[in-house]
Order: sequence, then C-alpha cells, then structure tokens
Amino acid sequence: IMDSVRGPSSPSQPITIVVVGASGDLAKKKTFPALFSLFYHGLLPPHFQIVGFARRDMGNQEFRDMITGSLTCRVIDGERCARKMEQFIPYCFYIPGQYDSLASFQNLSKAIAPFEKAHAVANRMFYLAVPPSVFEPACSSISHGARAHKGWTRVVIEKPFGRDLESYEKLQASLSRLLTEDEIYRIDHYLGKELVQNLMTLRFANSVFEPLWNRHYIESVQIVFKEPFGVEGRAGYFNDIGIVRDIMQNHLLQVLALIGMEVPVSLHSEDIRNEKVKLLRNIKPLTIDDFVLGQYKGKDKSPGYLDDEGVPANSRTPTFAACHFSINNRRWDGVPFLMKAGKALDERKAEIRVQFKAIPGDIFAVPSNIRGNQLVLRVQPDEAIYLKIVSKAPGLTSRLEEARLNLFYRTAWEESRDIPDAYERLILDVILGEKSLFIRNDELEVAWKIFDHALAQMENDRAPKPEPYNYGSRGPLESDFLAFKLGVKWLEERR
Amino acid sequence: IMDSVRGPSSPSQPITIVVVGASGDLAKKKTFPALFSLFYHGLLPPHFQIVGFARRDMGNQEFRDMITGSLTCRVIDGERCARKMEQFIPYCFYIPGQYDSLASFQNLSKAIAPFEKAHAVANRMFYLAVPPSVFEPACSSISHGARAHKGWTRVVIEKPFGRDLESYEKLQASLSRLLTEDEIYRIDHYLGKELVQNLMTLRFANSVFEPLWNRHYIESVQIVFKEPFGVEGRAGYFNDIGIVRDIMQNHLLQVLALIGMEVPVSLHSEDIRNEKVKLLRNIKPLTIDDFVLGQYKGKDKSPGYLDDEGVPANSRTPTFAACHFSINNRRWDGVPFLMKAGKALDERKAEIRVQFKAIPGDIFAVPSNIRGNQLVLRVQPDEAIYLKIVSKAPGLTSRLEEARLNLFYRTAWEESRDIPDAYERLILDVILGEKSLFIRNDELEVAWKIFDHALAQMENDRAPKPEPYNYGSRGPLESDFLAFKLGVKWLEERR
Amino acid sequence: IMDSVRGPSSPSQPITIVVVGASGDLAKKKTFPALFSLFYHGLLPPHFQIVGFARRDMGNQEFRDMITGSLTCRVIDGERCARKMEQFIPYCFYIPGQYDSLASFQNLSKAIAPFEKAHAVANRMFYLAVPPSVFEPACSSISHGARAHKGWTRVVIEKPFGRDLESYEKLQASLSRLLTEDEIYRIDHYLGKELVQNLMTLRFANSVFEPLWNRHYIESVQIVFKEPFGVEGRAGYFNDIGIVRDIMQNHLLQVLALIGMEVPVSLHSEDIRNEKVKLLRNIKPLTIDDFVLGQYKGKDKSPGYLDDEGVPANSRTPTFAACHFSINNRRWDGVPFLMKAGKALDERKAEIRVQFKAIPGDIFAVPSNIRGNQLVLRVQPDEAIYLKIVSKAPGLTSRLEEARLNLFYRTAWEESRDIPDAYERLILDVILGEKSLFIRNDELEVAWKIFDHALAQMENDRAPKPEPYNYGSRGPLESDFLAFKLGVKWLEERR
Amino acid sequence: IMDSVRGPSSPSQPITIVVVGASGDLAKKKTFPALFSLFYHGLLPPHFQIVGFARRDMGNQEFRDMITGSLTCRVIDGERCARKMEQFIPYCFYIPGQYDSLASFQNLSKAIAPFEKAHAVANRMFYLAVPPSVFEPACSSISHGARAHKGWTRVVIEKPFGRDLESYEKLQASLSRLLTEDEIYRIDHYLGKELVQNLMTLRFANSVFEPLWNRHYIESVQIVFKEPFGVEGRAGYFNDIGIVRDIMQNHLLQVLALIGMEVPVSLHSEDIRNEKVKLLRNIKPLTIDDFVLGQYKGKDKSPGYLDDEGVPANSRTPTFAACHFSINNRRWDGVPFLMKAGKALDERKAEIRVQFKAIPGDIFAVPSNIRGNQLVLRVQPDEAIYLKIVSKAPGLTSRLEEARLNLFYRTAWEESRDIPDAYERLILDVILGEKSLFIRNDELEVAWKIFDHALAQMENDRAPKPEPYNYGSRGPLESDFLAFKLGVKWLEERR
Repeated sequence: IMDSVRGPSSPSQPITIVVVGASGDLAKKKTFPALFSLFYHGLLPPHFQIVGFARRDMGNQEFRDMITGSLTCRVIDGERCARKMEQFIPYCFYIPGQYDSLASFQNLSKAIAPFEKAHAVANRMFYLAVPPSVFEPACSSISHGARAHKGWTRVVIEKPFGRDLESYEKLQASLSRLLTEDEIYRIDHYLGKELVQNLMTLRFANSVFEPLWNRHYIESVQIVFKEPFGVEGRAGYFNDIGIVRDIMQNHLLQVLALIGMEVPVSLHSEDIRNEKVKLLRNIKPLTIDDFVLGQYKGKDKSPGYLDDEGVPANSRTPTFAACHFSINNRRWDGVPFLMKAGKALDERKAEIRVQFKAIPGDIFAVPSNIRGNQLVLRVQPDEAIYLKIVSKAPGLTSRLEEARLNLFYRTAWEESRDIPDAYERLILDVILGEKSLFIRNDELEVAWKIFDHALAQMENDRAPKPEPYNYGSRGPLESDFLAFKLGVKWLEERR
Repeated sequence: IMDSVRGPSSPSQPITIVVVGASGDLAKKKTFPALFSLFYHGLLPPHFQIVGFARRDMGNQEFRDMITGSLTCRVIDGERCARKMEQFIPYCFYIPGQYDSLASFQNLSKAIAPFEKAHAVANRMFYLAVPPSVFEPACSSISHGARAHKGWTRVVIEKPFGRDLESYEKLQASLSRLLTEDEIYRIDHYLGKELVQNLMTLRFANSVFEPLWNRHYIESVQIVFKEPFGVEGRAGYFNDIGIVRDIMQNHLLQVLALIGMEVPVSLHSEDIRNEKVKLLRNIKPLTIDDFVLGQYKGKDKSPGYLDDEGVPANSRTPTFAACHFSINNRRWDGVPFLMKAGKALDERKAEIRVQFKAIPGDIFAVPSNIRGNQLVLRVQPDEAIYLKIVSKAPGLTSRLEEARLNLFYRTAWEESRDIPDAYERLILDVILGEKSLFIRNDELEVAWKIFDHALAQMENDRAPKPEPYNYGSRGPLESDFLAFKLGVKWLEERR
Repeated sequence: IMDSVRGPSSPSQPITIVVVGASGDLAKKKTFPALFSLFYHGLLPPHFQIVGFARRDMGNQEFRDMITGSLTCRVIDGERCARKMEQFIPYCFYIPGQYDSLASFQNLSKAIAPFEKAHAVANRMFYLAVPPSVFEPACSSISHGARAHKGWTRVVIEKPFGRDLESYEKLQASLSRLLTEDEIYRIDHYLGKELVQNLMTLRFANSVFEPLWNRHYIESVQIVFKEPFGVEGRAGYFNDIGIVRDIMQNHLLQVLALIGMEVPVSLHSEDIRNEKVKLLRNIKPLTIDDFVLGQYKGKDKSPGYLDDEGVPANSRTPTFAACHFSINNRRWDGVPFLMKAGKALDERKAEIRVQFKAIPGDIFAVPSNIRGNQLVLRVQPDEAIYLKIVSKAPGLTSRLEEARLNLFYRTAWEESRDIPDAYERLILDVILGEKSLFIRNDELEVAWKIFDHALAQMENDRAPKPEPYNYGSRGPLESDFLAFKLGVKWLEERR
Repeated sequence: IMDSVRGPSSPSQPITIVVVGASGDLAKKKTFPALFSLFYHGLLPPHFQIVGFARRDMGNQEFRDMITGSLTCRVIDGERCARKMEQFIPYCFYIPGQYDSLASFQNLSKAIAPFEKAHAVANRMFYLAVPPSVFEPACSSISHGARAHKGWTRVVIEKPFGRDLESYEKLQASLSRLLTEDEIYRIDHYLGKELVQNLMTLRFANSVFEPLWNRHYIESVQIVFKEPFGVEGRAGYFNDIGIVRDIMQNHLLQVLALIGMEVPVSLHSEDIRNEKVKLLRNIKPLTIDDFVLGQYKGKDKSPGYLDDEGVPANSRTPTFAACHFSINNRRWDGVPFLMKAGKALDERKAEIRVQFKAIPGDIFAVPSNIRGNQLVLRVQPDEAIYLKIVSKAPGLTSRLEEARLNLFYRTAWEESRDIPDAYERLILDVILGEKSLFIRNDELEVAWKIFDHALAQMENDRAPKPEPYNYGSRGPLESDFLAFKLGVKWLEERR
C-alpha cells in the first residue's frame, strides 16, 4: 500500500507505545483504533508493544476486552479484519497508576523493560490521552521516571494547550523544563485529515494555482466548520472553552495558515512550520470587533444551549463565531479571510472556499447571480475539490451558467474507500519523527497572540451577550453584516 | 428554451430560405435537418418559406418526400417529432433551375414573390449547398436576378474558399463585386460546435484563466483532429485538397485563433473578428519545415490511401499533417502552438490541450511521469472540459498522483442530451444577422497568407513524399521529432 | 541627421505644398517656419515648390518678405541659417484667391502646373491654415478644381473638427464626399511633440514598464495642462469653445489614448490607430458629474476672464476643467484617469503622472508624506522623464526619502538643443504618407462621443456656473474633492 | 543629523569599547577613525571610554599619539574637527597584554572597572582587530576574565571565519562554548556600505521593483568587483586565501543574498537573516565547473602575481574568479546569477547589474546593440543607481537609443558629501544591538556549504592552473564563455 512514506527515520526500531489515560474516551475512540489500523496495514515496527496506563485498576485481560470492543475495520473485509484483531490483542498490556506519581511511572518503566531487553535500540512513545491539567505532572513523571534508556522518548499531547496566552506560556515553560521541543508532539488532528494534508500539494505541486493565489485575483477566503448538533453531553467541558477556543484558534487557524503561507524552502517540517509561523505573525491580532458571536436557542424539539443541564443559566459561552482576519503581507494585504464555526447549525460541513475576483472590464456582463470562479475544498462530510467556472450553457442560447470542474475523492480513487483517520497518519508520523503535522511551540504562541485580546474582551463582564440563533438555523444574521462590511458575501450554498 | 438569443435583429421578420443545390448531400444531411430543428424549437420566424433550388427536375411533392426521408429528431420524442414534421413539410417548395442562369433565378424570384406580397418586410437567405466552382455564377444570378426587394439578402457559402491565396483573392474579388461583405456569410461549421462556441466564454468570463493564459505559464498549446477512417468514398475531392486545406487552414486555425486572441472590446462580431485577425497576423507564415506530412498505407484489412480507386498511383496528397505555429506577440512569444490532423488514425478525437509549465523551484520534485497541469477541451467524440491537477494520493503515503477536475457536458447539463448541431446555430445566426461565427474576408486572407508558402512548397515537384504510416496507427513517428525539437511532447493520451 | 525616417514612401517625389490661408497667424507662426526647418535639414524632396494661397492681394515678393520676417532658426548658427533662408525663399510663390471659389482653385492649379510639367509624378499637399467654416468649401474647390493629376493629393486640416458629435458628423459627411479618408490628414499638434511621440517607445520598447502598466500596480494616471496666462487677445474664439474643447477633447485625450492603449499588432499607422480607437471605445462617456469647471477672476493687476472685452458679461465658458475617466477594460478597470486643464493658473506645465500603488504589506511603514513610486513625463516647459523612488537617505540613519531617477532631455542628448517643433514632424509625415500621428475619422467620432453628453449638460441654461478661481492660483478647490472622492490625490508638486 | 536611528536599545548606556589588537592596521585605519566619527557626530553614549589592548608595551600617551595620527575628518571643516579630536583623545586608554592570557584580560577588566563604578549599567564591547588564529583564545579570555558585570558583553570579529566548512564549524563550535550567538557580532563590512544598506529599501519600499523582480522579467543578475591593482604588499595573506574566499564567499555572496531574498516578515534582524539563509539554502552548491579562475601576469611595468616576492613560484592561487549560481526557487529558477571578482584588472568597480529580458513580441525590432532595460547599482567608485531605458532619440527620426534614468548620490543628496564609512554604521549597530548587518552563524555555515566543494576541487593537486591574464586587462576571456554558455553576456560597459 505504501510506496513512499515520508520521513527521515524508518519505522523499524522496536517501540513501546504507552497510552496514558487508556481507559478514557479519546483512547478508546481514536487512539486504539488508529493503532490497530496501523497494525492492520503493517505500518507498526516489527517489534512493538502497547501499554495502557490509567488510574483504574484493571488486568491485561479486562483491558484487552475493553479495546476489542472499540476496534472496527475501515474496510469491509470482515474475515481478514477479525483475524488481524486476534493478532493485535496480544501486543496490548495494562499497567495501572497515578498520573502525578513518579513511583507509578517508575513502575511502568520497569514493566516496559523486559520487552526492550533483547533490542539494542528501544523507543518509547507516550500518548497522553488525559486532561490538560495532568500534562505537567505526567510529563514530569515521564521525564524523571520513564524515559527510554536506549532510544528516543516522545510525548504526544493534544489540545487544549492553555486557555490563553498566559496560561499557554506557563504550561510551555513547565514542559520545556521536562522535555525538549524535539520530544513534544502537539497534535492538531485537523492536520491529519486527508484534504488538509493535500493543501500543500495542491498549492505547491500545481503550477496553475500559485499565480492566482494572491490579492490580485482572490476576493476572499472562507473557512467554515458547521455541526448540526449542539453540546449534548459535553456541556461541561465546552462551556468553559467556547467555540472560538474549541475550533477556531487551533483547527481552523491551522487550515488558514496552510492556505495562506508562502512556499517553504523544502518539505522539511521545520521549513514548513517556519512559513506557517511567518504567516501567523502577519495576521493582525483580533479584537472583539472582528467577531460575531452567537448562542443557539431551542427550536421545535431541539433544546437550546442554556437548556443543557451542564450549562449555567447565565452562560455567555459562544456556540457560534464568525470572524475576520487581516493578513498584512505582500500576498494578502486587503484580502479578507473569514472564518465561521458553530454548533446546532443547519448542516454538517467543513470546507474552505477561495473566491476569485470578478473579471475586470467584463465584456460578458456576467449576471450578478453568477458568483464567478471559486475553488472549494471540502473536508467534511465527504472529501471533494471543485472549481466553479462560468460556461456557456449548451444549446441555441448564449446564456452563461455556473458549472463545476469536479474532483470527488470517492469516485476518483478506488482506494479512497479507505481514507485513513487523521490519528493514523499522526501516530505514524510520531513513530517516524516527522513533525510537519504537529504544532511547534512558537506557532502556538503566535496563535494565542492572535486571539488573546479578543478572548479577554469577550469574557469581560461588560461584553455583550452572544446573539441568539435557532437550533438548526444558519446562525445569527449578524455574521452576514460582518461579511457585508468587508464587501464580500458568505459563500456557502443555501440549502 | 431560449431565454436570451444573441444578436441585433429579431427573428420575427418574414423570410424565404432558398437552398441552392437542394438535391445534394450537404443539403440533405445538414441543411434541411438543421432547418427542421429550428422549426421544431420555434426558432424560425412566424412567416417563412423554404425553397429548394437545383438542376434536377422535380415537383414539390417529390422534393418534400426527399427531405422527409432525411429528417430526424435529436430528442427521443417520437410522437411530437412526427407531428412537427408534418407541420414543417408544407412550408417547403421546389423550383428547378440552372446555377449560372440569370433567367432561372429571375424565375425563382418570381416564385418567391407571392409569399412576400403580404408583408412590409421580406428577407431572403440563399444557402449555397453547391460546389465552389458555382459560387460566382450563382452569386451573380442572385445579385442580378433574385435580390430581396423589401428586406435583406444574405448568401451563405461554405469552404473551400479557394485553394491558395491567389485563388481566394480572385474568388473574393468576384464576389465583392456582386455582394457586400455584410451580405456574405462564410461558414466554418467548426465555429458552430458547442465547445468551440464556449471557448470565448471560458477564456473571458472566468477570472482564473486569463492570468495564466500567456507565455509565463503555458508551455504549449495543441490542437488535434483525428479520424479513425480513411477517404473511403471521398477520394476524388480529397486528393485534390489534402488534409492541410481540408482541416487545418480553416477549422483548426479558427480554433487556434479563439484560443490565442486578445480580449475583444465587446462581443460585437466585428470586434471579435478584429481580434482574430490580429492574432492571425501575428503568426509567422509557415514553411514546409514547420510540417510533418504523412500518408496512410494499408494495414490488415484496411486499405491504404493509394489503394483507393479515386487516388492516382503516385499521389503525394498528405492524409496526415502535424505543424508548428509561432505567434510573435506579448502573450505568446516562445510558446509553441502545435496542430495535428489525420485520417486513418487510431481514434476519433478532436481536442485542444493547453499544457502549463512545470513548477519553478519545485520542492516536491514532482516525478517526470506526472505531466503537470493541463487544460483539456474535448470537442469530439463527446464534449468535455477537464483540468489535470497534481494531488496527494489519499492514504498513509505522500505519493503524488494526477487527478482531474472534470466537466462532462452530458452529465453536467440535462439539456445537453440535446446539444444542437453546428448548422442549427449557424443558420439561426444568419437569420439574426449575428456574424461572429462566420469568417470575414480579411480573416480568410490572413489565413491563406499563413499557409500559402508552405502549401506551394509541399506541392512542388521536388518536395519530399509524405511519410507512410499504418492505417489505424498514431501517424508517422516524425511528428514526435517535430515536438521534441521544440522541447515539448504531444499530449494525447496513449490508449 | 536622419538615419531612419519612418514611413513607406520616400520623400523624393516632386511636390507642391499649398498653404491655404497663407497670410494668417497659424501659417506665419507654425507652417512656414516648419517648412523652412525641413528645408534647412534637407528633408524636403529635391523638387518642390511652396505656394501661398489666401484672399489678400499680394505679389510673390511681398509674400516672400512676409514669411522671411517670421522665419527663425532653432539652432544658433546664424550664418548658415541666413544662407539657407536665402536659398529657401525662391521656392515660395503666392496666388491670391477665394476659399470657396472653384475658379480660384482652378487658377491655382494652373499656376502649379508648369512646375509639374517636367516630372512623371507630382504630388500636391494642401495645408488648410484657415477657420473650420472654410474647410468644406475649400475641400470642395480642391477636390473639383485642384487635385493632383499625376500624384497624390493630401489635405491637412487642424482643429476644431466640429463642436460636438453632431456638427463633427456633418462636417465629416461633407468631407468624405470630397476626399477619401486616405487623403485627409487631421492634425493634433500635440501628437507631434517629442515626448508624446516617445510615449509608445517608452511603453512598448522597454520591458520594465509593460508588466507594471495595469490596474494591479497603477493607482491613477493624471494628465495636466496649465497655462499661467488668460485669454488675452483670443477671447472671441475661446469664449465660444471653452477649455474642454480647446485642450481636453483633443490634445489631452490623444495623450490619454497613448498612455492607455494596448500593444498594436505593428507600428503601421492603422494598427496604432485601431488600438487608440479601442481604448477610447472602452471609456465610459462623461457626464457633467465627472467634471469640475472653473473660470478665473481678477487678482492683483491680472484681469478676470469676464473683464476681457471679447467676453460677454454673463459668460459661463469654463477656463478651467478637471475631469475623471473610467476605462472599462482588463487593464484599467478601477484605475482613475484624471485630466486637468486651465488658463490663468500658477505655472506653465504639461505633464503626465503615473502614480503607482502603495506597497502591500509594507514592512517599512513608509511615512505618508512619501507618495511612493511615480513616473513623470513632462511635455512642457522642458521635456523630462523621471521616476520617483523611495530610497534610504545616506548616512547613519534609516530614514526613507524620495529620490528621482532622472532623464532630462536637454542634458541627455546633445542634439536635443535641437528638438524639432511638432509641426515639422507632422508636415514631414504628411509628405511621407505616415499617418500614425494624425487622427482618424472614427477616432474623432469616439472622442466626441465621450464628451458630447457632458458638453450638452454644461451648456444647458440650467447648468451651474463654473467655480471662480483667482488668476495665478491652482484653480478651484473643488478639483481636489473630485480626486478625493476617487480615493486619490492630484500629484502636481506644490510650488 | 539623525532623526531615526534603528534599533531596539538606545545608545545611552555607559560603555567601554575595548579594541583588542589596538596597534594593528585594521584598528588604526578603520576602527579608531570610525569611533572618532561616531563621537564627532554625537553618536556615542554620554559615558564611554575606549581602551586599546595589544601586546605592545605602550603608555596612554603614546597610544593617544598613535591614534591621533590616523584620525581624519570626512567633512572639510578643519577647525571643528580639530576641536573634536582634542575632546576625543582623553576618552582613550591603553592596556598592554597577551591575547591568550586570562590574566591579561583579568587585568584589563580591573582597569575598566573604575569607569563602571558610578553607573548602574555598564556595557562592554570587545572589537577583535586581530588575526583569526587569536579569535578563540581571546574569546576564551574575555568570556572567563573580562565579561561585563552589569551590562551586556559583545564581541566583534571580522573575516576570515575559517577557510572552509570544516574549519568554520570548528571555530564556531569553540566560540559557541564561550559566547552566546547574541554576543557575537560577525562583521562583513560590505553590509555597512551605503548602497548595500539601501538594497532592501529599494526592493521592498518601492512598489515598482518587486513585480519585476523574478524569473519572468529578469534575464540575469551580475555582481562584479574589480580592482585595478595587484596584491602589492599583502601577498602572504592573499596567497593563502585566494580571490574566492577574499571577496566572493563573503562580500559578494552577502550582496547576492540581499538581491535575491524574499520579503522578510519584518525589519527585525532575525527576520531579515532568516530570509537570507533561506535564499542561500536555495543555491545549488558550486562545483569547479561553475567557475573560471585566473591569475594575472606582468604587463609593461606592472608585475605579475608570481613576481611578487611573497608568492611561491608555483602558486595556483586565483586572483580572478567568475562564477555562476543557480537559485532553485519560485522566484529565480532559471535566472543565472553571475559573479566576478579580480585584482589587477582594468578599473576599480563594484556594482550590481540586473538585466531585464528582451520584450516578447517586440514590434519595434529593437536593434541588438541596444541591450534593453538594466538596473545598475554602483557601490564603487562612487555610489549611483541608474535604470537604462530605451527611448526614441529626439529629432525627426524614429531611431531608438539607450538612455538612463539616473540617481547620483553625490548630486542627489547634499549630505552625501558625508557618506559614512561602513565601519561607523557597523560599530554603531553593535552598540545599538541591531544585528541585521551582521552575519549569523547559520548564514555563514550555508555560505561555506555553497563554496566548500568547489574550493576543495580548486585546491586539489590535479586541478587545472588558473588562466593567465594581463595586468590591467578585463581578465581571462574564458569568463565570456562562461556567460555565453548560459545564454547571457557580461554587462559591464567597455571602456
């Protein structure tokens, strides 16, 4: 299946993968299935073991039963899949312990040792599937009690990385005393998505996009994430975070950086991340005026956000946000980048739209209902790329119509039935030491600098309440005004 | 069906359409079916008559039977079609006469008169479905004996318009004494093809193509016409003409002009044709060195060109030609335009390929088997537009692959089941007085100037014989060398 | 002196140059001096005669004395000049007659004949240095009574060509019945000015300007003509015409066309004029709202316009106008072209300024008092070209300063001491049959179409009065608002 | 004089400037005069002292006499200058010592202390005007014995920084153990030159250059350094180094980086140096085939290189080199960058020439003796910038000529009489902590990587001898072939 796997090291060295927080949801839903899929496709090293670590007291068998329950196969190939699962399970072990206990991790380390004995090199990956409050104690324990003796140690963490610039810097200061930047892998799972990975290829391996990819030809760029359901069940976590931190400051901002960045010197991860940081530094820090915030209210049988039992009655947490970025460089000066993210909206959709400018000196007088050229990159629900063009309608007419040059992943590639989950790509890259899909320290710092002031303004007691909008609607109307003020329109198609 | 028909005049005035040469093949296969189709779609004026004129002695009924036999309906709607045919036939009349006889045409004119009597305005269109040798006498007779008295007179002629610059200029000198340029409609039916009509729209109603449409980004443009059969049946005519005159100097050169021309001041036909003439004037006149010529020989059961009974044994008429154009202007300086046309080749195909340059400073090291971006406009066998792009292959790989952004006419537009024949568009435009799809005098003159010297060289007795190639093959290998010398490759996909 | 004189014909054929209106101001100040200068430089054909024709009764000697009085030499080379004058005078003859008298012109023709007798070819140029009311009768007389018998006949006329679209079309209709378009040479002496002639060279023989010459990089184009004196002495003529017709609709619009036009197919005059017409057709016709009009009033010892004895007390004739053109094509869509012309202003100046846009994503934060890049083409008072650039000021500072890349004609070329008068170039071109510096019929028609509606509005009784401004000032302040509304500034330097 | 001095810190804090190697040539010719000039212009902090340190035994007075002898004033203002010198001298002190002696530096530190006593902050700058062999011991002594106690410590060193990649890396490894990168200031005095400093301003503060600054419009870039004299007196040093290390790998390569780099995110020195490093990394490492090497021989009275007594008879050290760089990125792919440096040539000249491409589709048929647009940036002998343009020659001709849009520093700026020496700028920047004109560690490393392989090849015993060329000539003819092979020409004007 793989003719060319990126990355400098080969995945051949023995490895122990420790899933810290092995009994939690993330581990069950994402980590173990991804590990199994890598195994299924033969992408784990020949010698490996997987060690679950969590507070819950549990034996190997109970642990194995637990993860067996959550494994599935992407491909409909039941028999082979079942056989592979049977082969996979014996590689899994469980060690209980406390996340902040050095002793627990020393104990863990001791349990890992026998596997490593036979090998000259033995690496250890710690996947922290735990809440951020535990990041620091866990890393401390790892650093002092469970480092690899004859190989690398890599620690994978996932957002949230702080809740503002100050808390991020504090967290980072702690971690950097325990681990080197090289040892830390900050996951943003959006970067592992197939179409997001493809962004750089589309931009830089095609000669037709780059000449158009600038302020002369692009009218606006829009990055939209919409969910058709509310916080059902996650209210507690979400209410503290809000949609801006949950989706925008990380996932969508990463996408924006990939859309907007300059060509890197090479495909080396540091070169790519250098360019992302440059782009982010060129973004004017946001203020509350760059935002429209919303909070959904009940509609028909669907409950409003405040109806959720985990939500305080007077919560001002936004469940919807639209905002506008200015990028002050040669390429993008004057081109609005718009972002929109929301829950309880009218559809499930994650996509990027690049709207090209109208034709100067248009001899066709293209009617205004035709929006002109647009490149659409759809991440969800199903991957697709299309370019909207203006075409003469066939027939004895000279009517102009919108047409699409289409690329549907599912029809274009047979193997795309088998588009891997983002976590598979990311875990494989950790093993390979390929960091381009992980967030570097200074990237996160700039990301927080962009949002920090606006977040503080939003959460100030005197800040206005978010605009209410109906469950299942397009969100508050005010977001249309935001676009209007910039001389553009939201591009999402009406349903 | 038609929400916006182009053109200055409305198709509402009474008209008599005279098909001169009404008993011939062209009339039967193209003219009458096109007239019927226009009628079927309600696009003929409310008051009209169709008058067949030819040497053969025949009554109205016999004539009506003859054309009934050749009418078909594009749409599968048998019942309605049959009903419409019945309605159409009574509008058709027949007058026998000699093409070079003033008296015959005076007689014709007399026969037309009663229909015109009731109307304040009455136009006459003469469709000359006759050999070129008859153009001048027929036009003379029309001009002196059958002009419209209370409306316009328009005469439609179709290639060949001479066989070189001198003969064209002679023909044109004669015609211009009989008819004004406004009254002459020179058909190149390629301009009536749906995708060819769409060329200007694609180029000028889309903002993404124009910035790329120049020497900085385009490596070569290729216009290819391939037929999978030989001269079967038309040898006599063809042997005198050859593939260069038959296909290149007119059809393909018109396509080239549309691909290469600058934006016209307006969509007015004179403005469009001004720009086409400008482009053609910028083309360096061809010499025989810009060509590779070929002649097919028999393969398996398929006969060679010289095997055809209408072909002299020592014929050097090319059945295949490839050639190279240099356009010496700001936009195209240094970009090879390649053309290829042939009979008895490996497939039926008419298409335009615009190959974009490789990426400068390519960080992906795109492998050489990926040809990079290419815009393909397929005229035949079925209309389609696609843009080849380079994409990351889905999956746990970073392999690059070619993908296509596709527009298939047949799937994109429901009504495209009903793509009209080129002749319908063209006849309708004659009625409407819309001349942009017809060839202007100076256009033809420049077109001949481009080819004149090379044709003379080819037909010189000392010229080399055309390269032989197998029936059903890709044509002579030498055409690959032609491209190679220019640093490019033919882009047609291998089958 | 001339290594390459443009034009298809050689100036070797015998010629008679008839100056119709030989006793008038234009003839004395411009025509005869120009003819003498051409003679001085050896640029008249070997065989020629100059015939003055006017109503005044006068003999050859009196005529010769008259023109001797007005000849001067551009170069300070008194001796040679005096000698050349002596040689020149004997070629000059005088014939009195009436401009509307066929007999007079037949008489003139008879007087020309003896000179022509000896030559196989003998051309005749008629230079109409007479008021426009005489154009038609004079051309009629020339056409019917004084055409060349064995060579070409060319008639030179100079503005005004009508006073609006209707009167122009009427004039042109008359002339076209008498002379072919090939025989008419419409002078706009601005096109003969050295720097205006250089415009096409600068734009199209330099590779650095064309890529910048468009809406992506140019913020505005400004064409300014300022005179530091009022109508002193010409009030009668001027009051009927106004500044818009006097300067803008012809001279400055011609300059605008040269600045804005596309690259012509070749340097052939028809190709150049085709492109000028195309550009003019792309200009949106003006309305009074595109204008600011002014009329100067007295200041200190300088009299106001209404103080002039030839001016009616309630005259609303504008002596100042500023206006704005929109060019609706690919190159210029959205770029304001501004024009300003006025009398009794603060300086003598005729220049073109091309202001380039500010730098997007400016890392220098260039201070706003630095206006950025500007290309200045100064026509008057002394020819110069300069490009304003931003430079680091020398020294231990990082201050930015404006600097100039300069080309002063007077220092750059030794022979530029000898920059020819516009009329020399133009008369030489008439002899050579080179028409690119003359205005074609359709050019004038489009030029009138641009101004026609606005002129009608201005001269409507209900139109507002022009804004008063002080003699010697910068003109009315309202012109600053005109620029301001377009988001630009007038670029002329403050004194 | 200074309205805006760059840089984050203010030059107000007390400082001790230690000139290590105070009795040497560099110190006398460059360092002390620069320090005096800064003092003269009021650019040293209010509290400062200058301490000479060298092996020679000498008292303060002798030291002061020595430097007095070498001071001059740039401005002709004798009186004020003399007064200022008198004021300057008392700030200068001398301490003898050994460069590799910790004790000497501790002694030096003790001698500095009294001055610092009174101040809360007291910085120390060590200017190492000593041979590179002493860099490491001196830095060690500084680091361990003479660091500032209450302020920053900065150490200035100047080339050579090693003689190849390996020796540089060794040197750098040593230094980095003693000083942080922040504390090291690597001088390339070319970066202090006025016109070189202006390069970034010209490129990035002007909107007209950037759009042209790429492979579409630039044919080649040439950086040339020519000296009209040989090694007279420096043979020993030079023979070991050669022209490539002496001029190209540092000075000219720095200039190339400034010409070729992308727009930095900001003017912050790290951002600028990041972009320079990126550009250098895009350069394909050189091989000997990219070079033409030469060695001058005697001509008339001028001695050849091998005649110099410091030069071994069989020396193959090149005194001339021409070479070609390929930059593999979006901007420059395919544009040759040529460099030439030599001694004993025909003139003194240091300049950069940017040759723009010929006009595509040239309607003027510009004659080949006109080389088209060229931007020339002259560093020596006197600063100037000019743009060569093609212009119509004035007069009754249509001849094209080359003209220049000129900026001469000496005429443009009055204060340019007073263009500061590079060292003034650089020393001031050290005080200010502004690092953009200093070479960063990774920059030097990449610079060596570009040249390393070619240098090794040149110095291999089997390498061919350099081409001989006459003293005072243009250098070996082979350099013309080098350009020819790339399809370009050397642009220097023939004298």
